[in-house]
Amino acid sequence: MKAEYINPFISSTVNVLQTMASTEVRGGKPSRKEGDLTRGELNGLIGMAGTQVSGNMTLSFEQQTILSIVSKMLMEEFTELNEDVEDAVGELTNMITGGVKKLLNENGHSFEMATPMIIKGKGVSIKQFSESPVLSIEFECDSGKFWIEANLAPTK
Amino acid sequence: MKAEYINPFISSTVNVLQTMASTEVRGGKPSRKEGDLTRGELNGLIGMAGTQVSGNMTLSFEQQTILSIVSKMLMEEFTELNEDVEDAVGELTNMITGGVKKLLNENGHSFEMATPMIIKGKGVSIKQFSESPVLSIEFECDSGKFWIEANLAPTK
Repeated sequence: MKAEYINPFISSTVNVLQTMASTEVRGGKPSRKEGDLTRGELNGLIGMAGTQVSGNMTLSFEQQTILSIVSKMLMEEFTELNEDVEDAVGELTNMITGGVKKLLNENGHSFEMATPMIIKGKGVSIKQFSESPVLSIEFECDSGKFWIEANLAPTK
Repeated sequence: MKAEYINPFISSTVNVLQTMASTEVRGGKPSRKEGDLTRGELNGLIGMAGTQVSGNMTLSFEQQTILSIVSKMLMEEFTELNEDVEDAVGELTNMITGGVKKLLNENGHSFEMATPMIIKGKGVSIKQFSESPVLSIEFECDSGKFWIEANLAPTK
């Protein structure tokens, strides 16, 4: 995945978590994802589709990380992965991808967003049917880690 | 999901399985999907995204069904869910959605396709983050069953 595609994922993630959940996050260096298994307990998936670029994004949260983020988002303490937490993951997936879309559109790489899906569980096998490698970016905040995984490539 | 959105999923599925795998399939009556769990052992997912309509489609196969279909597609006997079978599910997901796209475009409901994902396992929880209900269509062929599940709705 090209560097010009990657940076919008990092800046949109930092921005959405700061704005929606008052959470400072630090993004690590992007690396190629090995294997197909989900790393976090709760995962938001979304398709990106356009005549210029297409692909998918996964947002994968450790349990403690998402509970802390959603507690700040909704100003109420959450201690288990219930429906409100799942919905918040869908909302975050939408907002982060929306930010990426805006930034990439400005540079002439337009796409539209499918609707998010929420997949429960660590170690679920999600294989991308694409020749483009999946890039993974690890994020850290005070409550733990989460990952953005994306494969975005010119549409064939 | 509107009836005019549903029929293209049925006709594209019947057509692709006939053309690619010489397999006659019979589609049942569409019904609203209850719960979020995958019904088959191997699942192809794809996002559909456009300024007019957006959503996701899942193609979910029982093990015997997909082994029989892929054996016919690739003219070689497959007895386990290996990488070739997973890739064939990605390809079928692409082709069926491509047929739906063509049919819906002709009626003024255009979208572009994200890239397919292959999710392994029965009973995986995949929740759609959408107010639009998920419709499920059960298909039968000589070797067993499979399901198309889709939520497609006007883009907000």
